[in-house]
Amino acid sequence: MIDADIADANLTRWQRRCDEAGIANRPHIKTHRSIAWALRQIELGAAGITVQTVGEGEVMVGAGISDILLTSNTLGAAKLARLGALAARCDLASVSDSVAVVDALAGSARAAGARIRILIECDTGGGRCGLSEPDAIVDLARYVAAAEGLTFGGLMTYPAAGTRRKSAQALEATIAALRAASFEPAVISTGGSPDMWSDEGLEPVTEYRAGTYIYNDRSLISRGTASLDQCAMTVLATVVSRPTPDRAIIDAGSKALTSDLLGLQGYGMLIGLPDAVIYQLNEEHGLIDVSKCETRPEVGDRVRILPNHTCVVSNLFDRMLVVRGGKLLGTLPVDARGRSN
Amino acid sequence: MIDADIADANLTRWQRRCDEAGIANRPHIKTHRSIAWALRQIELGAAGITVQTVGEGEVMVGAGISDILLTSNTLGAAKLARLGALAARCDLASVSDSVAVVDALAGSARAAGARIRILIECDTGGGRCGLSEPDAIVDLARYVAAAEGLTFGGLMTYPAAGTRRKSAQALEATIAALRAASFEPAVISTGGSPDMWSDEGLEPVTEYRAGTYIYNDRSLISRGTASLDQCAMTVLATVVSRPTPDRAIIDAGSKALTSDLLGLQGYGMLIGLPDAVIYQLNEEHGLIDVSKCETRPEVGDRVRILPNHTCVVSNLFDRMLVVRGGKLLGTLPVDARGRSN
Repeated sequence: MIDADIADANLTRWQRRCDEAGIANRPHIKTHRSIAWALRQIELGAAGITVQTVGEGEVMVGAGISDILLTSNTLGAAKLARLGALAARCDLASVSDSVAVVDALAGSARAAGARIRILIECDTGGGRCGLSEPDAIVDLARYVAAAEGLTFGGLMTYPAAGTRRKSAQALEATIAALRAASFEPAVISTGGSPDMWSDEGLEPVTEYRAGTYIYNDRSLISRGTASLDQCAMTVLATVVSRPTPDRAIIDAGSKALTSDLLGLQGYGMLIGLPDAVIYQLNEEHGLIDVSKCETRPEVGDRVRILPNHTCVVSNLFDRMLVVRGGKLLGTLPVDARGRSN
Repeated sequence: MIDADIADANLTRWQRRCDEAGIANRPHIKTHRSIAWALRQIELGAAGITVQTVGEGEVMVGAGISDILLTSNTLGAAKLARLGALAARCDLASVSDSVAVVDALAGSARAAGARIRILIECDTGGGRCGLSEPDAIVDLARYVAAAEGLTFGGLMTYPAAGTRRKSAQALEATIAALRAASFEPAVISTGGSPDMWSDEGLEPVTEYRAGTYIYNDRSLISRGTASLDQCAMTVLATVVSRPTPDRAIIDAGSKALTSDLLGLQGYGMLIGLPDAVIYQLNEEHGLIDVSKCETRPEVGDRVRILPNHTCVVSNLFDRMLVVRGGKLLGTLPVDARGRSN
């Protein structure tokens, strides 16, 4: 269930922040996987969107969104053919951190008669994909620039939480090395919801990729990034059993809430019952310790659960209930649900 | 990707075991959520199927399966109306552990002009839903028997792994109490894949619910229930980055493998690379420590991952690739994917 008033306020506030900071807002649609919300983000001023998979891109381009950044190395003949077809239909940028991936992307662009802008993925401390040595990045930029079908577009990174100062220093060293080799990185793209409101290390950045901020979740509350009244998604469930005074069981389990803990205790927070602990998930059931609750939920009670990690919850549902002003408007599809390919 | 030869052998072996033991096989379709596999289970001799949600039941009854056990307490007006409609279309049994749920099921049966057989859910040590005191179970059986639209059908339990002897003792005490009150429990239903091959505590049991055994998974290997060559499901992925000598990154993350650990180290096992450790999942990426591998996978290599928990992986994919004899046959839909409601 999505509170559209809260989601809209979250989108508006972040767009204003990007406008004031002079940074392009390129929201990551992996969180909502929804055409309606992506269009709303564009309407509010987003420069384009970020997708993590070719399938997400296909859904969004199919809805008329024309400016797409795909932040994954793409390999495999079938997927590359789809990527080329996508590039022929929109302004597509993607990422690479190796000659093998540059070759693959160039091949798909040429086969489709399209161009792909390439951001080189930099590991500035996050420990995911990406190159970290400025010289290696300059070498790969040169390789991209020489590849038919590709354009060198700049740099992309995803810093670990709390490290954006260090990330900025790494980016600046790389930018200097690129300029010394006569490459101008037009786009310096960073991302991450946990630190999105921090001013630290934004100097070299030209665009920001945030996803979770549309809904927020228990993880972002624990990091101080969002407050409970800025959380737009809850999972509706019903108490179906009270086998003991201390145990309540709801009809939502790991196929609704996922097993993502993200370092938190328990698999979500019950709204209005902060002392209840969802200590175990079976596939369709959540087991709750209610021993610390002042009032304990009874069989038949409806409860709302704030999930630990909203992005993976969206991906389990075909449709979301949308409420505004406390009233149910109807349902919206999660258009790109399951498009992890 | 499903190896249909392996899955078929798993189904056949378990059906033979049930036939030899004189126990009805009522496979749980939550694992595959597939009409084709459910029909294959019936064809091989299953007495009917088990579902965990009304939505799963709707998909399976829509495919013509007529004998369904729904092993969840069901509450909520909309869901109960669907349950009644389902009962009007098939031979439906469901479970209850409270007067509130019995009242709800009776109401839905009457509204639909249908009958529902009720198994009383017993907690025989599993600590999920269920009553544990024989007297309370007899009282609820009496309440069921008096309810218009319902028939008392017997007992249902899900023992914790390794406790089937204790579970049998609890069941036998309850059966004795029921008989003393002139109630004959026609069905004594137990379940669970981990102990499915154990003879212990089967004496009172008339039917067995197992789900995972169709595909098996890393969790069941760790429990000694299955061997690697009995595992039918793997997730195909591609190595898309090798940022350091020790780190490989694949294009499968928590939206393909899920975060379920089930007590294991790492988020799955790479076939042929047993020393690789999938130590972190992002949504679309798996981070692998390859430092202990004799041969390390390179960018572009295809890998196959045995998931920790096959049931939650099925639920993330619309379709599964099906291979037989090493050849790709095509794809089958995961018909009840997302039907957790």
